[in-house]
Amino acid sequence: MTSTQHSTRGQARRDEIVQAAIEVIAERGYRGASLAAVAEKVGLTQQGLLHYFPSKEALLIGVLTLRERWDSGGRDIIAEPMTIAAHEGVVEANSHREAIVRTFSALLGESVTEDHPAAEFFKLRYRRVREAYTASLRQEWGDRLPSGLTPEEAAPLLIAIMDGLQFQWLHEPESFDMPAAFRAFVRLLDPKAAP
Amino acid sequence: MTSTQHSTRGQARRDEIVQAAIEVIAERGYRGASLAAVAEKVGLTQQGLLHYFPSKEALLIGVLTLRERWDSGGRDIIAEPMTIAAHEGVVEANSHREAIVRTFSALLGESVTEDHPAAEFFKLRYRRVREAYTASLRQEWGDRLPSGLTPEEAAPLLIAIMDGLQFQWLHEPESFDMPAAFRAFVRLLDPKAAP
Repeated sequence: MTSTQHSTRGQARRDEIVQAAIEVIAERGYRGASLAAVAEKVGLTQQGLLHYFPSKEALLIGVLTLRERWDSGGRDIIAEPMTIAAHEGVVEANSHREAIVRTFSALLGESVTEDHPAAEFFKLRYRRVREAYTASLRQEWGDRLPSGLTPEEAAPLLIAIMDGLQFQWLHEPESFDMPAAFRAFVRLLDPKAAP
Repeated sequence: MTSTQHSTRGQARRDEIVQAAIEVIAERGYRGASLAAVAEKVGLTQQGLLHYFPSKEALLIGVLTLRERWDSGGRDIIAEPMTIAAHEGVVEANSHREAIVRTFSALLGESVTEDHPAAEFFKLRYRRVREAYTASLRQEWGDRLPSGLTPEEAAPLLIAIMDGLQFQWLHEPESFDMPAAFRAFVRLLDPKAAP
């Protein structure tokens, strides 16, 4: 076996473990999640799991990183500007992946409690994403959006709407139409957007 | 001692316990919080605490109810319509009461995990608040907001913005200006609003 095959298999195993962790956190939150429960889901001993992720925090970072990759449709949201239409696509896609959205929302909530291991991640993520969205909005609309807001003013609102709508949706996934609510927000940013 | 004095003292004690619970939940989340820690903060035995709140869930409901009372400035948000200016006042006030906002945001996050005792509370709260805000927005602006949205479209966005901005603020309370961000959202709803 070549080392490339080895690492590809290792990566597949890591992905499988992260997927199991997402499910366990969606059920119990991070503080309530145990490595034993994650190990059991993938048929490993706890010792075997520690070979891939040396600590519960390392696994948490794995989960948060995977989410980031999905959220941006596989792109690097910092390097590549996203149009508002691309954001609509992300919200639409999120409405079909409840487990990861549930996990992320639970972690976001937990992260504001004392000394939470994800606190720094979310703080830095918010900074980076505000900057990236500001740049994207400026690229699409210049220094003023059609609504009159600056990109700097609109970026934190765009993030807040996405985070906030997810909670309303997670509490009523059958009846709350998250993509439609997001499109209404887009019409606030750009009154000429299609309803 | 009359029974009125008795119940007033009992109420003061209950308020004190709820305040202690808010602090403990802000530190550890609800799942991580223990009745023992709350009892210790107010100088009661755990048995003494159970006299006021017969279970951890009863105490949780006490916390959520108090928050509701504060959020509306003591008013019943369902019975009395709130103008958008009153909402600005709530966000401004929230920016000076970090502990309760932190507790509420942590509980909101936890509430999306499996079988959480606050799940039903948040689900019903969202329904009630969406209805109440829809009615308030209609009273202020009629069937179309200046931005062209219907009150039904704007109400979930108003809630999402308030919930979502709190997370960004809690991660950087020193530098993220939550009231200013909310006022920018108000200008989206009503382009004629003062900046």
